[in-house]
Amino acid sequence: MNHPEQMNKTMNTSLSGLTAPLLQQVIDAWTELKTQQPLVHIMTNGVANNYVANILLAAGASPAMIDNPFEAESFASIASAINLNLGTPTSEQMQAMLIAAQTAQRLDKIWVLDPVGYGPILKWRSEMVDTLLQFNPAVIRGNASEIGALAGNQIQSKGVDSTVSSASVYRQAQPLLEHATCIAISGESDFILSKELNSVIQINGGSYLQPKITASGCALGALTAAYCAVSNNITAGTVAAHIHFAIAGKKAYERAKTVGSFNVAFLDEIYTLDAEDFQQYSDFNILPL
Amino acid sequence: MNHPEQMNKTMNTSLSGLTAPLLQQVIDAWTELKTQQPLVHIMTNGVANNYVANILLAAGASPAMIDNPFEAESFASIASAINLNLGTPTSEQMQAMLIAAQTAQRLDKIWVLDPVGYGPILKWRSEMVDTLLQFNPAVIRGNASEIGALAGNQIQSKGVDSTVSSASVYRQAQPLLEHATCIAISGESDFILSKELNSVIQINGGSYLQPKITASGCALGALTAAYCAVSNNITAGTVAAHIHFAIAGKKAYERAKTVGSFNVAFLDEIYTLDAEDFQQYSDFNILPL
Amino acid sequence: MNHPEQMNKTMNTSLSGLTAPLLQQVIDAWTELKTQQPLVHIMTNGVANNYVANILLAAGASPAMIDNPFEAESFASIASAINLNLGTPTSEQMQAMLIAAQTAQRLDKIWVLDPVGYGPILKWRSEMVDTLLQFNPAVIRGNASEIGALAGNQIQSKGVDSTVSSASVYRQAQPLLEHATCIAISGESDFILSKELNSVIQINGGSYLQPKITASGCALGALTAAYCAVSNNITAGTVAAHIHFAIAGKKAYERAKTVGSFNVAFLDEIYTLDAEDFQQYSDFNILPL
Repeated sequence: MNHPEQMNKTMNTSLSGLTAPLLQQVIDAWTELKTQQPLVHIMTNGVANNYVANILLAAGASPAMIDNPFEAESFASIASAINLNLGTPTSEQMQAMLIAAQTAQRLDKIWVLDPVGYGPILKWRSEMVDTLLQFNPAVIRGNASEIGALAGNQIQSKGVDSTVSSASVYRQAQPLLEHATCIAISGESDFILSKELNSVIQINGGSYLQPKITASGCALGALTAAYCAVSNNITAGTVAAHIHFAIAGKKAYERAKTVGSFNVAFLDEIYTLDAEDFQQYSDFNILPL
Repeated sequence: MNHPEQMNKTMNTSLSGLTAPLLQQVIDAWTELKTQQPLVHIMTNGVANNYVANILLAAGASPAMIDNPFEAESFASIASAINLNLGTPTSEQMQAMLIAAQTAQRLDKIWVLDPVGYGPILKWRSEMVDTLLQFNPAVIRGNASEIGALAGNQIQSKGVDSTVSSASVYRQAQPLLEHATCIAISGESDFILSKELNSVIQINGGSYLQPKITASGCALGALTAAYCAVSNNITAGTVAAHIHFAIAGKKAYERAKTVGSFNVAFLDEIYTLDAEDFQQYSDFNILPL
Repeated sequence: MNHPEQMNKTMNTSLSGLTAPLLQQVIDAWTELKTQQPLVHIMTNGVANNYVANILLAAGASPAMIDNPFEAESFASIASAINLNLGTPTSEQMQAMLIAAQTAQRLDKIWVLDPVGYGPILKWRSEMVDTLLQFNPAVIRGNASEIGALAGNQIQSKGVDSTVSSASVYRQAQPLLEHATCIAISGESDFILSKELNSVIQINGGSYLQPKITASGCALGALTAAYCAVSNNITAGTVAAHIHFAIAGKKAYERAKTVGSFNVAFLDEIYTLDAEDFQQYSDFNILPL
């Protein structure tokens, strides 16, 4: 019975038994998001802030972009979750991020790290990301280039866009589970490594137009924070945010095949998505780590 | 004849006589906005700036976001009106705001203060707002939590969203008329306290989707500055901006029930609204202070 | 035979022979843009960054907004082209722009300068623009007020909007060819002065709604950088970006007559425009300098 293929099959079977309970947790998280409207403290980049705020409002959360060092501690203290995104940092915003991460750790708050552009070319932010890792993010979310580089591989993003596929990177990301409960990698399929489930959740859906909308990933990171603030566990919250995006992207593409219209339709679908959509359109499977 | 109810009725009757003249002033302000295209000097937050600029361009104004301390004085000097919004301040932007407010006071320019997030948690900006109050804004515009807190009540916003209703706060806001000619409180109904008319104007309309679009309030503050630059008096300008928003929101909702589409429709309606719409759809009443 | 009219006619005839080859270069540049997806290093203003990123993604480029002084050199070194836009500078962004321009010159990289608001009122940025001119931008792009002021005329923008027509300014802009290969002036018609062709290319198209969408010009400057990164020469790249905009604007207006809908349609058209559209809708002529 130690034949590897057999074992793998057994594990898969056992993991497939986790699918239905996880989907239920995802739907519960969505219900709680709409009900609780959690306050999410967001420090994000200048390209993303408007879009991120609109996505979170559409999904049901209450976003607030407070990114100065003088208010970071007090605001992080009252927020339900925090999202730190390194897209276009300034010196003051960097200070604020450090304070927020420290505060989050001290108060045991959920926070999500988005290491935009991590890699050897963008050293200033990458060093800050290395520092921030000490403060125990609940989730690290990025594209495949960023997560691959963060896991110690020799990968450089094309600016802020990925040069490798999520499928090729997710196995290499496992060491990052030392730092966070979940590692979420965006791509054609999204992969979420979970310490809680000791497995990888692969999420399908979305649209090839998604990477043509700037700040999609940034918004997904912030939505992950929002969901984690109200979910039973970090994995359910992270998966919920990614499925929410995947379904909205898929449904938006049914209505709109060009980027401007898709962008509008996507925001509409983020807003109107409901429990039935989760039941009908969720497309994920759980793999062994 | 001193019976309070009776007196109140008399006052209301007398105030209702002000409705038609005020509506005419509002329409005149709209005409002037389209004709003069006033230059509005705006310092606003990173979430709002693109949206605010597009709303002002659509309405007919000429917005310019100049928010560094090195150009604040010279630009405030040539602008027709100024809008200072404390949403995501930086140290440099704070300096610039102080200079702009001082310049506005010195040159007797109309400026509108938007104390985003005012309250005990966000002390840095709140202290700056307290300082800025000295420089005589024409209008203070905020949501009910912010205005309530500014008036000395124990209210904390949920981040940048309100936790109380405009209807419950407007009477408490009266002391703020020491600092400004109008106090505008956004909510399901908007309430504008006017020192000029010694009354409160309640404006109905809009849509429940409006708070789901980030920076709506910020855009309304900037539009108030634009209208006040060209109106006969501060009250007419402030009311005009709020009615413009209320009608555009109402008409947009007739076309679009989800946030992405509503957002597009709202910008369309801001642009196409005309004098006839003001005549047909304006829904406001004037109450005693 | 030295009669000026006659000579002018001769020149025009000779220049009209350049139209077809230039159009072919434009179409080639578009093909290369879609194929190469060049990485464009952008430092732009807080109003524009989201819109600019979406326009470049729609057109096929890979934009990255890296605007801090600590990463400016390393990122400029790997980018295919650089766009520096002075819309809402901060002290840190100013430092970053200087470093990027120096790096671009040192490595002989194409960079595009957008001197937003240049003129006597906005001295801080205008002095920085004067400094940046030393580092040999490939293209200087602005509205007529900005380019006119930069060429030494007594023109002040209305904030960031033009007060004069592109047609009235383009002849005065000729001295600026000392500093750059192309000078691009936006307006009802766009005029591109080319040192390479020793001529002026006048581009027609677009829509009167374009100036009602904030950051249109900023996006055009960034798109110019993207095209120049992949074109045979600076003139072809600059003309390609402007024709891409002109056709997209014209086609968007056929679908949408109000600003919100136009904005969505414009992004759609930027995305869907193809070689056949360039063939069918390009409307430009080449004039003597």
